Amino acid sequence: MKIPYKIYLEESELPKQWYNMRADMKVKPAPILNPGTLEPVTAEELSGIFCEELVKQELDNDTAYFDIPEEIMDFYKMYRPSPLTRAYFLEKALGTPAKIYYKFEGNNTSGSHKLNSAIAQAYYAKKQGLKGVTTETGAGQWGTALSMACSFFGLDCKVYMVKVSYEQKPFRREVMRTYGATVTPSPSDTTEVGRKILAEFPGTTGSLGCAISEAVEAAVSHEGYRYVLGSVLSQVLLHQSVIGLETAAALKKYDIKPDIIIGCAGGGSNLGGLISPFMGEKLRGEADYRIIAVEPASCPSFTRGKFAYDFCDTGKVCPLQKMYTLGSGFIPSANHAGGLRYHGMSGILSQLYHDGYMEAVSVEQTSVFEAAQQFARVEGILPAPESSHAIRVAIDEALKCKETGEEKTIVFGLTGTGYFDMVAYQKYNDGEMSDYIPSDEELNASLSALPKVD
Amino acid sequence: MKIPYKIYLEESELPKQWYNMRADMKVKPAPILNPGTLEPVTAEELSGIFCEELVKQELDNDTAYFDIPEEIMDFYKMYRPSPLTRAYFLEKALGTPAKIYYKFEGNNTSGSHKLNSAIAQAYYAKKQGLKGVTTETGAGQWGTALSMACSFFGLDCKVYMVKVSYEQKPFRREVMRTYGATVTPSPSDTTEVGRKILAEFPGTTGSLGCAISEAVEAAVSHEGYRYVLGSVLSQVLLHQSVIGLETAAALKKYDIKPDIIIGCAGGGSNLGGLISPFMGEKLRGEADYRIIAVEPASCPSFTRGKFAYDFCDTGKVCPLQKMYTLGSGFIPSANHAGGLRYHGMSGILSQLYHDGYMEAVSVEQTSVFEAAQQFARVEGILPAPESSHAIRVAIDEALKCKETGEEKTIVFGLTGTGYFDMVAYQKYNDGEMSDYIPSDEELNASLSALPKVD
Repeated sequence: MKIPYKIYLEESELPKQWYNMRADMKVKPAPILNPGTLEPVTAEELSGIFCEELVKQELDNDTAYFDIPEEIMDFYKMYRPSPLTRAYFLEKALGTPAKIYYKFEGNNTSGSHKLNSAIAQAYYAKKQGLKGVTTETGAGQWGTALSMACSFFGLDCKVYMVKVSYEQKPFRREVMRTYGATVTPSPSDTTEVGRKILAEFPGTTGSLGCAISEAVEAAVSHEGYRYVLGSVLSQVLLHQSVIGLETAAALKKYDIKPDIIIGCAGGGSNLGGLISPFMGEKLRGEADYRIIAVEPASCPSFTRGKFAYDFCDTGKVCPLQKMYTLGSGFIPSANHAGGLRYHGMSGILSQLYHDGYMEAVSVEQTSVFEAAQQFARVEGILPAPESSHAIRVAIDEALKCKETGEEKTIVFGLTGTGYFDMVAYQKYNDGEMSDYIPSDEELNASLSALPKVD
Repeated sequence: MKIPYKIYLEESELPKQWYNMRADMKVKPAPILNPGTLEPVTAEELSGIFCEELVKQELDNDTAYFDIPEEIMDFYKMYRPSPLTRAYFLEKALGTPAKIYYKFEGNNTSGSHKLNSAIAQAYYAKKQGLKGVTTETGAGQWGTALSMACSFFGLDCKVYMVKVSYEQKPFRREVMRTYGATVTPSPSDTTEVGRKILAEFPGTTGSLGCAISEAVEAAVSHEGYRYVLGSVLSQVLLHQSVIGLETAAALKKYDIKPDIIIGCAGGGSNLGGLISPFMGEKLRGEADYRIIAVEPASCPSFTRGKFAYDFCDTGKVCPLQKMYTLGSGFIPSANHAGGLRYHGMSGILSQLYHDGYMEAVSVEQTSVFEAAQQFARVEGILPAPESSHAIRVAIDEALKCKETGEEKTIVFGLTGTGYFDMVAYQKYNDGEMSDYIPSDEELNASLSALPKVD
């Protein structure tokens, strides 16, 4: 049977439930801890920060499937299913016998997969009768997605945007404003933690960890607001499972069984979503897949971090999570994959990696942009720098197949478009891009400051 | 039968032929004229500027269907079919009994429908053994599309970009460079006509008409190059018929018969493509539809122009065409719909409008952005300013239905995304956008300079 270039699902074939990998994990992720007491955080404590339904989802290690509410299904239908594309032209350009597929999540105005969780989090906030939500954004994909979701449900949306991105990406900011969000450069003087950081580091251009602290403070100090987050959390991986479930359904339509599944990993939202159903089969012993996380060499949480309890934010106001981390004080170099510059990693993925269910590799950004350009020229999609990490490794694996003659089936996640990353492409086009790999000393310094948890 | 949010065609249902409206027109478009002799241009004369196959398509008023070559079909399959979307959420927000559908052409990296013709023109250039092609671009959508298409076939691509856009839209430029194109700000000193215009108007920020002149000169003065154009031409409308043919096929799947079909009109590429099969039925007397062209009040070729022979470019090196025109010397105000700032209009559409087969309305840009924002917030797609002209009138027609209680079916073309137009959105968000309508005196001045043709 000839596989079409793009496999779409009918509206009736869309997943109607999210899948929770934790239900099938023998070793569950360690509980998240209250930053004050260092004891496992209770649902009650969490509900000051998160919406009630989301707290339930966050703490539920047992329920395998959650029904997707009808209102969210309706919104999903505006931009989903995303296509699963057979990369015929890339295969031809590489001369590989490998069969390459990618699940493209960039065909919506937010430009990435982030919308899948944004709409869910906005829905539960609305359902709880809240006035609005607060969040942080780095590169801006998450902030854009959330502002779209909030606008849809008529919720107020306060976005703390890392100052360097706020200044360098005015267009991202304007998209958020067009959707009615308030965008504040972080650190700002609108929060106590922001003022503290500004006093300590007057010239700082901000960081994701710092913006998280500000957004959390803004949520707890405004009546009727809660904080929402676009990655790392288990609830986010739950919502993002829609990516993997669609992928699995599309592959099944044509009896395709992948050998290798590849995703870029920052906080883990895309990777965790893409691999969900496949990891489920692996955990239940029903099938085996090679699953590869790809991270930037400049921010290598999996490959050079430590599996330990750490703070999720710089200001240390958020719960602690056991994860692969470079230390909450780690400041990654100014690489161009803003979405992959987080010091930590999803607790679920960290546990799975620790237990040997997946691999991780780190790649340098010039080789990532080389892959991005090659892909763009033959497949017609200009990929986001984040997504291009997965492209790099997919190409590498396809080239290995060329050497060995193996006809492996490779599936990778193409999380978004690079429309708002042209400054990075310009650097690459002009030959002015450089690589940066942190030294052992640098990593040891931030890792030595990890909190002591028994 | 419940209509899904998005109607996709299977790969096997994609149109395999383009449709040429001219074959069904009782009054054919007037012949295009040699700018030197003012006599109908011959195929031989045209083949110095255009590829041979494209010359045939340009001059063919009789053949109704052209097979789409397999190589182009393969490329189409990378990003087509585009979805036909039922605007359930917009309908709900408007409280209208009208049923609104839009054909969204923005889901490809060029961000618009322009790719449909770019790939065709690049293919025929490659087939003829050419080295490369030259073109102009205003807002950048066409240049991006062409650079993608050329990169795919390994053709060199020289783009003359209107200087003001070159400076204001560096990201557009970088996308083209990523696809390997050479981008030159126009007017430039690389051509005789450019040098002449620079000498006459030293501080000029350029215009589309001027960039066309430069691109044509560059084509004829370089061995192995031809000129390609993204709109106005009959060949372009032929290629763009894929939009309308897909729309008709998708509607037919659910037995939907549109009452009103709406498209924005700059040079006519999108509108001409979208309406093709419907206009065909109308011309053959098989069905009737209201067909509405929407243009900016600041550049109102249909509604305030003259139906006459005129030059297609400022430098007067291109053939003359009989069309609705504001005069080739007309300089539209700096509105934010770069793709709609052309002084003329497709000859086919001009003849059809003249013969009463379609209507035209002009709209002001603040009301266009109001519609754009309303649409973005409920339908989740941030539209290009050009496309938003069609949204404005679709909303207006839907609101009329609300008053009368009529359940009309409205189909409009959503030609592209607004990712690269955030400066315009920022102006709108900041309340700094203004409208401009040219005075009768201004129009009379440029219209009085129309060439004298018997």
